[in-house]
Amino acid sequence: MSSSEVTILRIWNTQREKRVDLVAKEAPISIKVNGKKVATLLATPTDLGELACGFLYSLGLVKGMDDISSFSETGSEIEITAELTKEFEPDEQVLTSGCGKGVIILSYLLGKIDSDLVISTEAITLLMDEFQLKSVGYKTTGGVHSAGISDGKRILVFKEDIGRHNAIDKAIGNLLLKRVSLKDKILLTSGRVTSEVVTKAVRAGIPILISRSSPTDMAITLSEYSGVTLIGFARKKRMNLYAHIERVLEGIGNW
Amino acid sequence: MSSSEVTILRIWNTQREKRVDLVAKEAPISIKVNGKKVATLLATPTDLGELACGFLYSLGLVKGMDDISSFSETGSEIEITAELTKEFEPDEQVLTSGCGKGVIILSYLLGKIDSDLVISTEAITLLMDEFQLKSVGYKTTGGVHSAGISDGKRILVFKEDIGRHNAIDKAIGNLLLKRVSLKDKILLTSGRVTSEVVTKAVRAGIPILISRSSPTDMAITLSEYSGVTLIGFARKKRMNLYAHIERVLEGIGNW
Repeated sequence: MSSSEVTILRIWNTQREKRVDLVAKEAPISIKVNGKKVATLLATPTDLGELACGFLYSLGLVKGMDDISSFSETGSEIEITAELTKEFEPDEQVLTSGCGKGVIILSYLLGKIDSDLVISTEAITLLMDEFQLKSVGYKTTGGVHSAGISDGKRILVFKEDIGRHNAIDKAIGNLLLKRVSLKDKILLTSGRVTSEVVTKAVRAGIPILISRSSPTDMAITLSEYSGVTLIGFARKKRMNLYAHIERVLEGIGNW
Repeated sequence: MSSSEVTILRIWNTQREKRVDLVAKEAPISIKVNGKKVATLLATPTDLGELACGFLYSLGLVKGMDDISSFSETGSEIEITAELTKEFEPDEQVLTSGCGKGVIILSYLLGKIDSDLVISTEAITLLMDEFQLKSVGYKTTGGVHSAGISDGKRILVFKEDIGRHNAIDKAIGNLLLKRVSLKDKILLTSGRVTSEVVTKAVRAGIPILISRSSPTDMAITLSEYSGVTLIGFARKKRMNLYAHIERVLEGIGNW
C-alpha cells in the first residue's frame, strides 16, 4: 500500500501527542484511450495498468485483454491502445456517489449469470478472515478500501485503494492481465455494495459477491435479477445473505 | 432516512434465521440545468432539491441561491433554472473514487479561507456525540454516510445518503436554500476525507472540517493550503488534528 507520513496532533482524553502518522496516498490519474482522455480518477497511485484495464473492462469498453494492444505509464497518466467495443463518446458528465456512470440502467441489459459455483459458510468465514489479515493499508492508514478475488480456497489477488471502485477495478484488471477466467471466481470487498459494484461483478461474470459491509436495495434487486449471490456483513462468524442464496452451502465441520 | 425492507437470511455461528432487514435506498437521480442534463447521481432519493442545489454549488456552477431561479422535482429528475457562473460544457467523462470531477487541480485556484472561528476539543467531542446519535439511517441500514453542519454549539442540519458526497451536498444545499451563511460553520462527516471533500468545504468557505474517519494525504495538503482546519478520527474523546490546528482550543472543564 502506498502511504504518506504526516505529523499530526493526536488528542485522547486530556492527552495531546505530536506524532508521525500514516495516511493513504491519493493522486489524480488520467486514463487516455487511443489518444483521447476518457477519465480522471482520484486513486491510490499504485498498479495503474491494472486499474486502467479493469476500469475499461468494468465500464464495458473492452471485452478483455485481447482488445488491449498496449499500455504505457507516464507518471500519473496511463496511455492505452485498445480496440473498443463501442465508440466512446462522452456526451454527459456523469458524477455519482462513487463513479456512477449511469450504467445502472444498462445493467439490466447485461444478461444473467449462470454458474454452478457454490461455497460453504465455513469457507466464506475463512476467506473473510484472510481478507482482513491482508488489509495492511487499512490497518496503517484507516483510509483505504480493499478488494480481492478468490477461487473459493484462497485469495488470488488483493488490492487496496482510497476508492472502493478503484480497488475492485485493480483486482479485476490484475486477473484480466494474467488472462485468468473470472467466471468461477468470488469477489470480496470491504466496502458498501451499491448497484455499481454489482454491475462490476456481472460484467466480469463473477457469480458470488461478498462484502464486509452493507448493500443498498438497488444492489440487492440487481443481484437478484442478474444471478449474483450477494452476501453482506461477512465478519467473523456472521453474514447476511441477500440474493441467490442457493450457492451458499451449510458449513462442513465446526467453526 | 429512506430505507427498504428486504427478507434476508442471517447466519451467525451455526444459527440461520430468515428475517426482514432494512437496507439503504438507492436511485438514479438526473440533474438538468436549463434544459440540459448535467449529471446522473446514484443517491438516496430524499431532499432532491437540496441535493441538486448543493451539488451545483459544490461544483462551482452557481455562486449561491441568487443564481438559481427555480427548481422542480419530477420523480427521479430535478430540473433547475439557473444563471451559471460559467458555461457548462461537459467535454470529458470524469469518473472517480467518489465523484472526482477532476476539480482537485482547480482547488488550488479556490483561494484561502481566512476565518477567526475557533472550537474547543470539548465542543468537538460533544458535536460528534450528537452526530452519532442522529445517524439513524446508519444504525438501521449500516449502508449510509452522514453529513452535518454546525455553528459550534449544535448541529443545524443533518443529512444521510448512500454517497458521502451526496450527504455533504444535501447539507450544504439545505443552508444555501435557507440563505444561511456557511462562512462561520463547521462541516461534519462520517466518511473518509478525500481532496474532493475538502474542496466542498473550501468552496463553501467552511473553515473547520471534522470527520469520524481518516483523511488522505492530498486532503491534508489541500486543507493546509486552503486554510481549512482538518480533524479526523473524531470519536468519543479522541481525535487527530491534521491541518490548521490553531483553531482548536484546549477543552474547558473536564470531559
